[in-house]
Order: sequence, then C-alpha cells, then structure tokens
Amino acid sequence: MKKKIYFAGAIRGGREGAALYRRIIDRIKETDTVLTEHVGNPALSRFEQGRDKDSEIYAQDIAWLRESDLLIAECSVPSLGVGYELAFAERLGTPCYLFYRRDRVQLSAMLNGDP
Amino acid sequence: MKKKIYFAGAIRGGREGAALYRRIIDRIKETDTVLTEHVGNPALSRFEQGRDKDSEIYAQDIAWLRESDLLIAECSVPSLGVGYELAFAERLGTPCYLFYRRDRVQLSAMLNGDP
Repeated sequence: MKKKIYFAGAIRGGREGAALYRRIIDRIKETDTVLTEHVGNPALSRFEQGRDKDSEIYAQDIAWLRESDLLIAECSVPSLGVGYELAFAERLGTPCYLFYRRDRVQLSAMLNGDP
Repeated sequence: MKKKIYFAGAIRGGREGAALYRRIIDRIKETDTVLTEHVGNPALSRFEQGRDKDSEIYAQDIAWLRESDLLIAECSVPSLGVGYELAFAERLGTPCYLFYRRDRVQLSAMLNGDP
C-alpha cells in the first residue's frame, strides 16, 4: 500500500531549492504517492494570486495535510509556509521528517528544539 | 492593563530585518509588554545552540505563546520559526497581526490564504 506523502518546500520564500525538491519528489514517487508534486515544478508561480486564489491554495494544502500519512520537508530555504505546515502536521499527529543542508544553514530553534 | 505581545521575526532565517524589529518592539513597548524582546537584539546569535539549548528556546517560546494576548509578526524575511509560531498561535486561538513589505516580498499562500 503506497503511503501519501506531503512534501513541503519553499515557494514564495525562494525557489533556489526547486531542482532539489524535484529530485526528492521523483525519488519518493518510486515507492509512494506525493500529494504536493507541484512544489518541484520550476514553472510554479512565486507571486501572490490574490486572496481568493490564495484561499483556494490554502484550503487544498490543508486538505492534503489532513490526508497525508507523513510529511517530508526540505528546510534549507527559510519558508513561512513550510513552518506553518510543520506546526499544522504536528497538531494532526502526522509524522514529520525534516532535511536541510547542515553545512550551509542554521535550522530554526522552533524546529531543532521541538521534542 | 497592558497586553502581553508575542513579537515574531526571523532569527536563523536571516537578520536583515533586525533593526526594523527593534523599532516595532520599541513602539509596542510604549503601551504594552513584549515577551520576545530579544528578537530585536542585533547581537542575538543566529547559530544552532545544540539540541539541549534549542529545546530550552523552544520550551520558552511555547510558554510565551501560551501566555500572550496577541501575536504580531513581521513577515518580510521568510522564516520557518515564524511560520511555526503563527500556526501554533492560531491553534491556541490567539489573534495574529501580520505585517510585511508588500512592495518587496510575496507572502506565503498559507498565510495570505488562511481565513
């Protein structure tokens, strides 16, 4: 039975990780299902879509968070959205796996210190 | 009666907003109490403090989140910690006020689209 994975990466916070996100998503898809495959799409818009469209994005992402079996986050690029998603997943009791480039960045104390 | 304010700003995500955070904190302190005054301290360390110390930071920040009457976030610099804190405050039912430089940055859909 394939697991449903919520992959979290920075979008409006910066797209310098997009190619890495794509590689991670492709690897996960070899065995499981990625609900948020668009996060690895290099053509994904970084721009605000207006409140109505952003409300749709929010509602879809929350639905995927509720549906997912686990969350995998690439945290090398700081992101308000990823931080929000991690706290939301924690509230749901969803297992979270965080990755980041330890040689380049400092992980938030709110994540590194979270029991 | 002074309100207790949780001010949220980027720390490990980047300190380019620190001077602005300080000005906002000073203004809030004219009328109310800021629990997280250190966020505006330019000498604050950006570096991981190890799991034990980061666990203490996490526990202190969660205690302040639970104690605060409202949260004010400066969201111009993307931050995993600020995103986490916003979701946590929302879960507690704490009113949140978000500010950011609309001429320079795009706010996360998870914040802009959140009802």
